[in-house]
Amino acid sequence: MNKINVAVAGLGRIGKIHLKNLCRNFPEIKVIAVMDVMDESKAIAEEFNVPNFTKDFDELLATPDLDAVVICSPTDTHADFVVKAAKAGKQIFCEKPLDLSLDRVQEVLKIVEETGVKLMLGFNRRFDPEFKKIRQLVVNDAVGDPQIVKITSRDPGPPPVSYVKVSGGMFLDMTIHDFDMARYISGKQVKEVFAKAAVKVDPEIGEAGDVDTAVITLTFEDDSLAVIDNCRKAVYGYDQRLEVFGSKGMAQAENNFPNNHKLFTENGISGDLPLHFFLERYDASYNLEIREFIDALVNNEDMPVDGTDGLMSIAIGLAAKKSVDEGRPVALTEILS
Amino acid sequence: MNKINVAVAGLGRIGKIHLKNLCRNFPEIKVIAVMDVMDESKAIAEEFNVPNFTKDFDELLATPDLDAVVICSPTDTHADFVVKAAKAGKQIFCEKPLDLSLDRVQEVLKIVEETGVKLMLGFNRRFDPEFKKIRQLVVNDAVGDPQIVKITSRDPGPPPVSYVKVSGGMFLDMTIHDFDMARYISGKQVKEVFAKAAVKVDPEIGEAGDVDTAVITLTFEDDSLAVIDNCRKAVYGYDQRLEVFGSKGMAQAENNFPNNHKLFTENGISGDLPLHFFLERYDASYNLEIREFIDALVNNEDMPVDGTDGLMSIAIGLAAKKSVDEGRPVALTEILS
Amino acid sequence: MNKINVAVAGLGRIGKIHLKNLCRNFPEIKVIAVMDVMDESKAIAEEFNVPNFTKDFDELLATPDLDAVVICSPTDTHADFVVKAAKAGKQIFCEKPLDLSLDRVQEVLKIVEETGVKLMLGFNRRFDPEFKKIRQLVVNDAVGDPQIVKITSRDPGPPPVSYVKVSGGMFLDMTIHDFDMARYISGKQVKEVFAKAAVKVDPEIGEAGDVDTAVITLTFEDDSLAVIDNCRKAVYGYDQRLEVFGSKGMAQAENNFPNNHKLFTENGISGDLPLHFFLERYDASYNLEIREFIDALVNNEDMPVDGTDGLMSIAIGLAAKKSVDEGRPVALTEILS
Amino acid sequence: MNKINVAVAGLGRIGKIHLKNLCRNFPEIKVIAVMDVMDESKAIAEEFNVPNFTKDFDELLATPDLDAVVICSPTDTHADFVVKAAKAGKQIFCEKPLDLSLDRVQEVLKIVEETGVKLMLGFNRRFDPEFKKIRQLVVNDAVGDPQIVKITSRDPGPPPVSYVKVSGGMFLDMTIHDFDMARYISGKQVKEVFAKAAVKVDPEIGEAGDVDTAVITLTFEDDSLAVIDNCRKAVYGYDQRLEVFGSKGMAQAENNFPNNHKLFTENGISGDLPLHFFLERYDASYNLEIREFIDALVNNEDMPVDGTDGLMSIAIGLAAKKSVDEGRPVALTEILS
Repeated sequence: MNKINVAVAGLGRIGKIHLKNLCRNFPEIKVIAVMDVMDESKAIAEEFNVPNFTKDFDELLATPDLDAVVICSPTDTHADFVVKAAKAGKQIFCEKPLDLSLDRVQEVLKIVEETGVKLMLGFNRRFDPEFKKIRQLVVNDAVGDPQIVKITSRDPGPPPVSYVKVSGGMFLDMTIHDFDMARYISGKQVKEVFAKAAVKVDPEIGEAGDVDTAVITLTFEDDSLAVIDNCRKAVYGYDQRLEVFGSKGMAQAENNFPNNHKLFTENGISGDLPLHFFLERYDASYNLEIREFIDALVNNEDMPVDGTDGLMSIAIGLAAKKSVDEGRPVALTEILS
Repeated sequence: MNKINVAVAGLGRIGKIHLKNLCRNFPEIKVIAVMDVMDESKAIAEEFNVPNFTKDFDELLATPDLDAVVICSPTDTHADFVVKAAKAGKQIFCEKPLDLSLDRVQEVLKIVEETGVKLMLGFNRRFDPEFKKIRQLVVNDAVGDPQIVKITSRDPGPPPVSYVKVSGGMFLDMTIHDFDMARYISGKQVKEVFAKAAVKVDPEIGEAGDVDTAVITLTFEDDSLAVIDNCRKAVYGYDQRLEVFGSKGMAQAENNFPNNHKLFTENGISGDLPLHFFLERYDASYNLEIREFIDALVNNEDMPVDGTDGLMSIAIGLAAKKSVDEGRPVALTEILS
Repeated sequence: MNKINVAVAGLGRIGKIHLKNLCRNFPEIKVIAVMDVMDESKAIAEEFNVPNFTKDFDELLATPDLDAVVICSPTDTHADFVVKAAKAGKQIFCEKPLDLSLDRVQEVLKIVEETGVKLMLGFNRRFDPEFKKIRQLVVNDAVGDPQIVKITSRDPGPPPVSYVKVSGGMFLDMTIHDFDMARYISGKQVKEVFAKAAVKVDPEIGEAGDVDTAVITLTFEDDSLAVIDNCRKAVYGYDQRLEVFGSKGMAQAENNFPNNHKLFTENGISGDLPLHFFLERYDASYNLEIREFIDALVNNEDMPVDGTDGLMSIAIGLAAKKSVDEGRPVALTEILS
Repeated sequence: MNKINVAVAGLGRIGKIHLKNLCRNFPEIKVIAVMDVMDESKAIAEEFNVPNFTKDFDELLATPDLDAVVICSPTDTHADFVVKAAKAGKQIFCEKPLDLSLDRVQEVLKIVEETGVKLMLGFNRRFDPEFKKIRQLVVNDAVGDPQIVKITSRDPGPPPVSYVKVSGGMFLDMTIHDFDMARYISGKQVKEVFAKAAVKVDPEIGEAGDVDTAVITLTFEDDSLAVIDNCRKAVYGYDQRLEVFGSKGMAQAENNFPNNHKLFTENGISGDLPLHFFLERYDASYNLEIREFIDALVNNEDMPVDGTDGLMSIAIGLAAKKSVDEGRPVALTEILS
């Protein structure tokens, strides 16, 4: 079998993780080119013995014999890069979100569809072993029909306000993962969104037009429910829990910890805080998601997370924002019409 | 010191618990009369050496030297009995809710206030050692300012449909405890309610005009949030959990179990289900609540749960119902104006 | 049915617990007399409406119509009181141990057997709901044939050295419960004991001729094993855990806690310490053991813990002591020959 | 800095793990040669781009510019290979045990000492993050002076009887890790060993002269204690737990699980079994131990586990065997004199 030739665009934190995984764990592929706007990234390409380095995406796409591209560049480049890659006939893995504008996302997805290339969106948490296990229990009917999905998702600390301003807002930047998770775990489509939000962590976030604390209720098409609670700052660390309650039972995924020790002293019982943040907590998921992308390529199968998944999460995020702004539940049809 | 003379009205499940606790654990009081509409209840009075038994509440109130009355009769008698007891100058403990009509509740509270007697409402869960501990942690500022209160409250099975029809609906019958708990844990007042509900457990509940599954978002006056999820049927038993997330940390109360064993076999690790239902789960709370009632009487102090607490929970319940009916968030001022 | 008339001898901590349980929870019996050497104890008798109070055991036994006696007086009176009660034809519940001298115990048991009265020994931990559950799992063959029983038993703090001197030593005073538990959980007989012990808590304990820290290996007749670890002082509180490992699985009983809250702060996750000491931890067991005693009386059945159980635990304790003294494993036949 | 040139001898399960870790995670070294007796192993060398492959250890040692050798060949080759490597002046990492004969071990260590090369023994569990954390808590004085170390170590199933026959017996094959762990966690030296053992899993193991179930008590020089319980077959999987009890508290390391989900159904609460066996459970430890070996080489520091550690564990194992055979505690001086 010929090896699949892959290029990686963008060598930020996630890009480096993907590059490392691609280079180390997949004998069936070869990373033949890397693109990043920073000169310094050339050294990374060399460290992993990637033969071609460029600062230009068009040049990356022009690498001879290139089969697929993994896009990890900043969000505002995603749509353009995906369109270019699709038109060049390359298979595509792209970090979420495709774009913050729903129109642009729909436009991009239409082009991808026309070109017939595969597109996978990087909702890495679907590949987290904990959450995969819960999904498996749902699929195996161990919990029966899901009636209530509960997701707790709190960050250890807020991003810089400068980032908040360009992030598209908490719902599109942070909760978007939870929206996808609610759909993934339940296997159901969302029809309505109600969100209440507040600024509790940092007034500057409010001044930047965003919120930092929220509770969002999603209603699925069969009237079953999901509820997500978010906060940009949990002083005890990254809080990522999930439960699904159904007619036959309930399945829970707890936080992951650096170790499981307990210390008993005269002051009480204590243990470590959860794994610090997404790089640690979702480390395994990055590996597994890129594995499923490669597997789908090798076996010419459907992508496990497709463009519609990306579209729906953005639409739910926009509905949540509208719900907060207008103080009422918002039907998804208002957003996607 | 003279003993306080107490009468108990109503010897259903809760009435019997209160009677037993009052007779066994309080040397400072004497139960001098018991009232119940059933002839058979006379035997219970005798078992506990209560000298007077009657089937009539007026007669109960007329018992010589009576100081206080504990009202555990059916909900539709609460308002009348409280009014009569107040007018007779007796101190009052009354099971929740005072009434399902907000007007009637306000009327009753006005009368109670005019007579100057003390009134305690039976929100027993406030006295549950688990939840008291969480409240204590909030009071001691261990969690900082509460930002999100999360309450999971699911029953092991629905009541008979005949009961559902007269119950006032799930929000006033079941969630009312959770509304009170949200206020108790946070120490904050609710300003807005949004509820989504569905019929997932039994279509007959829907035909009776009620719901059996719900997620309710409460907004407090400072924009902090509470979220409650309910279901009338959790096949794994009575699910009563609570967490409060704040600026300094998070405190959780887990379910209580009949024992803490774990069994490891080749099929996996297993343990018992939570304590079956409210009589088992909240056993200690019934004892502690009646103790605090007696203590407040003996020391002539304010009641730990007063009429306003009862009023607010009913108002929130009515707002939740209106929210479901009208598909929008409902301000508490719409209900309490 | 005529009520069974019961007397209680000794109103120390345990005596008061038994008296309270007997008076409150058993309509089928009547406590007609109480004996204690302290004048002040008369008030306790009155509080519980017990008609007769005496400071003399013979007088107690002479109470007309007395059926059974519950002996909770100091250890050095147990043997005498049991003999007297047996000769008077009374059914007997006696706190452990019967005596610290094996000869005396055997003598007493012989007399009891000759008189034909029932004798139950107060190994209350057998009635602890946690440990009962583990025993049940063994009986139901959920763990298969027990191969290793592990018992952790550590006190929150050592008794006064004055008590240590007359206690018979840690093995007869403290570990005796664990020896009984090893026999109870496994349902097997011990054939050999090896104990290693040290003085780690308080040198005065060593000067008094005792030890405060130990690991004891018991070999059952079928060569399966039990291991007990003890310490007189665990700074984090009363540590009472147990596990049984068998051919089909393993069952564990964890410590019991005053509540199950968890607090998450930036300093880590914390929770309360275990229930403080035996009065709190084994509260339920005292109730259940006296219930089983009364049930056996009422139904004329065998006692759930009999004289032989008491004898065996003392023999194992003496073997453990000999093992430490002689630095070698000691066969039970060396002790019981 | 010049890269350190490393060779790997033996490509069994552990050898492959070490090779993979060495090739992927250490830019500061280069694996220049691999030796294995199987022809098929050549492909593995090629997969990892190792330039030299041989079936002969002498030839491996003769690889030009070789600095260090990682020995993962069968136990009966360890002593010879270590001697040869030491005489050739190579730094050495060797899987445990050095040899089953104490004389031979002492002889080898003497040679190693004379040649002045560094020798690290592969007690990988010392590098397990869970156990390292516990050791850290001891070092930081969080538990005070260790008084009782408790180790539970049970395999998911016994090895083939053919292996049992050449393994040196359970104590030298399996418990040897626990002996080392008791020394590592406490930081103390063992002075006496008492072991009780039985054949409970498979009579054929007994016929082969070995045991499969044991409880071993270790006495440290300061009379503090350790207790280890072993079984060759725990039907619920690989059971690897540890606790250390001291004057200031107690620290526990629980089992590790493939995920932390809990499933609640009407049949009870359940979860997954522990990670299956040592390759999964101690995966991280293999990486960390080889990292510490490389670090010690690079920085020219002492090895974190040295020859004496290997010697002591074997001596304790031999004492345990003697203890079972002779039914008495065995002083380590009897073995090491």
